Amino acid sequence: MASPTSRVRVHNFTISLDGFGTGADQTLKEPFGHAGTRLMSWAFPTRTFQNMGIHADVPPSVGIDDAFARHWGENIGVEIMGRNKFAPKAGPWPNNGWQGWWGPNPPFHTPVVVLTSHPREPLHMEGGNSFYFFNGTPAEALAYARELAPGTDVRIGGGATTLREFLAADLVDEMHLVVAPIILGRGERLWDGLEKLEERFTIESATSPSGVIHMMFARRG
Amino acid sequence: MASPTSRVRVHNFTISLDGFGTGADQTLKEPFGHAGTRLMSWAFPTRTFQNMGIHADVPPSVGIDDAFARHWGENIGVEIMGRNKFAPKAGPWPNNGWQGWWGPNPPFHTPVVVLTSHPREPLHMEGGNSFYFFNGTPAEALAYARELAPGTDVRIGGGATTLREFLAADLVDEMHLVVAPIILGRGERLWDGLEKLEERFTIESATSPSGVIHMMFARRG
Repeated sequence: MASPTSRVRVHNFTISLDGFGTGADQTLKEPFGHAGTRLMSWAFPTRTFQNMGIHADVPPSVGIDDAFARHWGENIGVEIMGRNKFAPKAGPWPNNGWQGWWGPNPPFHTPVVVLTSHPREPLHMEGGNSFYFFNGTPAEALAYARELAPGTDVRIGGGATTLREFLAADLVDEMHLVVAPIILGRGERLWDGLEKLEERFTIESATSPSGVIHMMFARRG
Repeated sequence: MASPTSRVRVHNFTISLDGFGTGADQTLKEPFGHAGTRLMSWAFPTRTFQNMGIHADVPPSVGIDDAFARHWGENIGVEIMGRNKFAPKAGPWPNNGWQGWWGPNPPFHTPVVVLTSHPREPLHMEGGNSFYFFNGTPAEALAYARELAPGTDVRIGGGATTLREFLAADLVDEMHLVVAPIILGRGERLWDGLEKLEERFTIESATSPSGVIHMMFARRG
């Protein structure tokens, strides 16, 4: 369904061994809820994440975790994310000043489409970060994203609900999924409603000394 | 809690990527329900499973899948299994003649403790297979199993509910878990209620050319 020159890609999306893409009880201080930093801790030491400004008390790692993480931005011209990746809680915006979790210069450096049923004017920030608030189906959001960045690839940034909807609509061409060996017990499940998803993808897995498992899903044909 | 000379072990227990240890709609013809043979298909080509009498149209494999599978019986003197691994459906026994899914000479060749609230006399079959039907907690079943085979290790044979109960009771010393890259969507979940299980184990993962991921859980200290 995607044109050969614009692929829909997922990178560094991490789930627990029991399939949760984020924990329960998301708050302003805890974007991942009770999961805290446990889902993404594999990524913090990588050179890619340290170059994004993530602080880690170790030399930048350039092993398998970084080999996967570094493709995050290549040829990506726009990201689509769910409302909960931009701000906590559903409902009207907490206040007009809310500019996301990432400080004055977010790490995207592209347009970002935020899926929400609550209208808001576009938010332009430093570093080429512009957030566009959009109400529509995954296919409509994808068309809108491609207008914002013609000819580039589109990254689906999550969270779990957003990714699940794009997978259900068969709009994802490549998915780099990371399985962290933790049992979260509660939160937002990625896999619900995706029975037989594997039939649409070739899947390759690789383990890392950090303990996580990298899985690469590539759409067949 | 286990004595150093009798460990409680799990081998070759396979779950889908979405965490189901068996599918839905188990029947007499389909012990794994709608999952069919998809969960265990990684194991059929191995020398270990072919030596158990599993038919596979390929030469016996001796790679990583067999390297894990072959430890299944070492020093195991008894297995504990849930009622649904022995017979389909809860409730009274379908008939007195039901002798399990495995034909006249099951592959266990040890005593087997079947957890059930429905009393039944022990069933003695060929090849050293004796099934004992037991109603009690996981700890009570373990004590009973150890009486049947003193000084040996005990294998927890599943299904998912039985394994989950033994994990919740912190009775498992070693667990070889296999993750198959399929999304079953429905069935019996392994991980429910086991939040933070990883804190009690060291975990190592390895991928296989067959596509599955082997995970070895070893209880800490």
